Amino acid sequence: MRRFLTDRARRAVAASLRGATRPAAPSPAPAAALSRPSPSAPSAMAAYMARAMSTSAAGTPPVSLDTINPKVLEFKYAVRGEIVTHAQQNLEQELHKNPESLPFDEILYCNIGNPHSLGQQPVTFFREVLSLCDHPALLDKSETHALYSSDAIERAWQILEKIPGRATGAYSHSQGVKGLRDEIAAGIAARDGFHASGDNIFLTDGASPAVHMMMQLLIRSEKDGILCPLPQYPLYSASIALHGGSFVPYFLDEETGWGLEVDELKKQVDEARSKGITVRALVVINPGNPTGQVLAEENQKKIVEFCKNEGLVLLADEVYQENIYVEDKQFHSFKKIARSMGYTDDDLPLVSFQSVSKGYYGECGKRGGYMEVTGFNADVREQIYKVASVNLCSNISGQILSSLIMNPPKVGDESYESFMVERDGIISSLARRAKALEEAFNSLEGITCNKAEGAMYLFPRLHLPQKAIGAAQAAGAAPDAYYALRLLQATGIVVVPGSGFGQAPGTYHFRCTILPQEDKIPAIISRFKEFHEKFMDEFRDVSRDEAPTGATIESGGD
Amino acid sequence: MRRFLTDRARRAVAASLRGATRPAAPSPAPAAALSRPSPSAPSAMAAYMARAMSTSAAGTPPVSLDTINPKVLEFKYAVRGEIVTHAQQNLEQELHKNPESLPFDEILYCNIGNPHSLGQQPVTFFREVLSLCDHPALLDKSETHALYSSDAIERAWQILEKIPGRATGAYSHSQGVKGLRDEIAAGIAARDGFHASGDNIFLTDGASPAVHMMMQLLIRSEKDGILCPLPQYPLYSASIALHGGSFVPYFLDEETGWGLEVDELKKQVDEARSKGITVRALVVINPGNPTGQVLAEENQKKIVEFCKNEGLVLLADEVYQENIYVEDKQFHSFKKIARSMGYTDDDLPLVSFQSVSKGYYGECGKRGGYMEVTGFNADVREQIYKVASVNLCSNISGQILSSLIMNPPKVGDESYESFMVERDGIISSLARRAKALEEAFNSLEGITCNKAEGAMYLFPRLHLPQKAIGAAQAAGAAPDAYYALRLLQATGIVVVPGSGFGQAPGTYHFRCTILPQEDKIPAIISRFKEFHEKFMDEFRDVSRDEAPTGATIESGGD
Repeated sequence: MRRFLTDRARRAVAASLRGATRPAAPSPAPAAALSRPSPSAPSAMAAYMARAMSTSAAGTPPVSLDTINPKVLEFKYAVRGEIVTHAQQNLEQELHKNPESLPFDEILYCNIGNPHSLGQQPVTFFREVLSLCDHPALLDKSETHALYSSDAIERAWQILEKIPGRATGAYSHSQGVKGLRDEIAAGIAARDGFHASGDNIFLTDGASPAVHMMMQLLIRSEKDGILCPLPQYPLYSASIALHGGSFVPYFLDEETGWGLEVDELKKQVDEARSKGITVRALVVINPGNPTGQVLAEENQKKIVEFCKNEGLVLLADEVYQENIYVEDKQFHSFKKIARSMGYTDDDLPLVSFQSVSKGYYGECGKRGGYMEVTGFNADVREQIYKVASVNLCSNISGQILSSLIMNPPKVGDESYESFMVERDGIISSLARRAKALEEAFNSLEGITCNKAEGAMYLFPRLHLPQKAIGAAQAAGAAPDAYYALRLLQATGIVVVPGSGFGQAPGTYHFRCTILPQEDKIPAIISRFKEFHEKFMDEFRDVSRDEAPTGATIESGGD
Repeated sequence: MRRFLTDRARRAVAASLRGATRPAAPSPAPAAALSRPSPSAPSAMAAYMARAMSTSAAGTPPVSLDTINPKVLEFKYAVRGEIVTHAQQNLEQELHKNPESLPFDEILYCNIGNPHSLGQQPVTFFREVLSLCDHPALLDKSETHALYSSDAIERAWQILEKIPGRATGAYSHSQGVKGLRDEIAAGIAARDGFHASGDNIFLTDGASPAVHMMMQLLIRSEKDGILCPLPQYPLYSASIALHGGSFVPYFLDEETGWGLEVDELKKQVDEARSKGITVRALVVINPGNPTGQVLAEENQKKIVEFCKNEGLVLLADEVYQENIYVEDKQFHSFKKIARSMGYTDDDLPLVSFQSVSKGYYGECGKRGGYMEVTGFNADVREQIYKVASVNLCSNISGQILSSLIMNPPKVGDESYESFMVERDGIISSLARRAKALEEAFNSLEGITCNKAEGAMYLFPRLHLPQKAIGAAQAAGAAPDAYYALRLLQATGIVVVPGSGFGQAPGTYHFRCTILPQEDKIPAIISRFKEFHEKFMDEFRDVSRDEAPTGATIESGGD
């Protein structure tokens, strides 16, 4: 077996943390970047000022870091942040040039929910329909029946009939093709048992642009706040920062499996208001990202009630609605919950985000998705439409795929059985992977990990020895970022430090996807374990007397 | 022949302008909306205040027009504005329910550059490749050769080899798939005769998101200004307004075929600076939208020199680079011009926007495009990358299509001849349509129209009788909006009022695409002529003494 942390690799880690491997690097050195725990921290401002001064000294180019929009400069997006950049830009090239120089032979991207990049195969029926809609001339040819299933051909016809002029190359209505929106609405109604309307659907290039649209609509200034979970998917903090609003965090409770408590929401809203913040909306990610919890129905009811009472827009990130891995939990949309409580369109502004990138399909590259917008005045709805219209429309393939995931093959369709085999195979495999990784993490000294009830991630907590925290501080890095970089350098496994998602003060985590193909999981676990044990051996505290205030140095679980 | 303006239709026009047809309409009544000539005009503020007050009176919903981002409320996007909304929401339904009630039997959307929506067929080779990449399993089957050309199959293989894991369903690098970017760069280099690098390409979901990214980067506050042509494509004014910057207009000279004079640029920059505006960038649309002019090489050199001297970023909207209709003009990219002048990457920040939506392909629904970013410091480039990364990546089909348009079939490829027949057929037909419409407009009393040398539009000037201007004012509408609405009500032809693009004070225009299929052009011309002549008869001034200050009431050309 390879040695996981050679002296050479160890030196590379240290050099990388100092930024020394890239003396003329185009990016801020990893250490400097990692040392900024939050966009608004003093160190970020210091770095900003330092850069501004150094740029000025070099002359006055038309555009420099001191003359760009400071909101752009300050926001962070850790999912594609420094750790993954280091993997892509440095280690991949190194592996390519000199495969023997690193203690691993491939990089395993566990940083992002991107299933197809790790070998997940597309669902055949969906791709058949997309392929036919891309080249409708095929539908007139008899040879097509030799290559495509008959229900895919039939579905392609149905979809083309919904598109004016059958023109998949035309801009659609800015909300998306009406017939496809109606089909999605029918799928929502079938899922929830409550009415849904195609007029309320806004098709988008994935869920991210939809989130940006809502932030753009709701945020007027830094006096407008958006309640977001911590830990959170950093799209939210990034979008709020880019639109100039205030991020109002509420903490999920790790002790209760990342529970979302209304008391905590209330406390944070009151505190934000006492600072003069107008809280506009509550973001709930269910199933959770990065935390993987699935909310209970009773909990959801309390959240709806809270939004109603406090006059908040409920922004429900429901992109993992098909990713449920435990028997005792089920996905309920917030709209279903609200309607089941008797609330109508008049009572509560509610936006549900859905994406073709997640679920069992995982079609990230198609950039499809939608938001269902209910409970807004007609005149506000018109403003949302206007924002959508500036980019004209979302891509038609993504629109078609959005309709397919909300209306997959049914019993009796030619593709139904093979479709179900593909679908169930993916979901049950993801459930097994989640369980295997969770158990592995929990078996290790200094790691505790909640179950992934849903979504695509585990978010283990690192109980780091004080010596490791000290080493990170010496390198100018957040402790979990230091750990993640060491992990990468030793094993090629790319995870995202918990500091990229936010976490309770004094706690450290990382997010790891459950997406590597199942046959690779044992090797990943063994590589991970070996690294982690050596890391703990390297840094294990000799005495508890060294513990500083605020740092967690337990040797086992909580 | 049908009567074009029945009493019934006339009453409908008047009612629509009063907003009376939709008493509980979700949108602002057309008259109210049309009466706001610019986002910052006093009337917009008055309307805003009035709405704010009326909303407050009805209670305090969590979100209302008085509590959304005022930048969203104020920006306008006429290409999908009130006229087209009226056509889609009211007239289409009316035609469907009661076809005999309107004096036309179909609505002709000449408001937007959306070729496939008007019957243009996709280019076969491009769609074959997309279809294969959507369903790569086809590539392993022998039957595929009966349905697809051999070079499309070969190209699909080549493209899949460029995509890591051949996973067209995976998020790519946030700038786009590296191999596709390299292919695009090779296409740019072949076009320009100067080096281009895939590292400088950012693939985007059409050109619009790329424009937003640059505005987001450059605009810090309303003290930052962006120089834009007037008339302009309203994406620019909308994006600048949404990002909180100042729109600094420069006027194109209608007398010299929409000439772009550096003296005018200098005047406007100086004036903006005297008001405390930091001018960050110059937007040039070449070929022009909505104006259709193609810049001469000498003119482009002066523009580059101007940007260099004034320290401006040059934002070159070059999405119509394949749409040239006159023998004596040729497209030159601004990067080619700058490099031919000896300017390197160190001298001038320059961004070129390209899209799969325009050209002879016109694939609007695919939402593909790119920007080539040169002349920025590496640290600023990294910030552009970070903004791109928030939406993860653009859709892969759009990325593939972007590579195809920059590397179409070559001599010797199986598809080459049929491809060239399709390509040249579309471009030569567009040239004939542009000419026929221009001649028709110029043949009419009260209309003058510059040639469309390129792009997809004509922008005729209306020399409206004072009585017509008075009638528009009485209806609370801008005169050209009044004309466009009357045209729609009488003929079903949808054009965009010049006020949506900006125009010299006291002048009136409309933008009309050249995209209806060629066999429909004679009928359109005849419907248009009949409407226009009746309109002029209805409003022809009896005496020139009634002319008010600032209004143009000539009866013929300039």
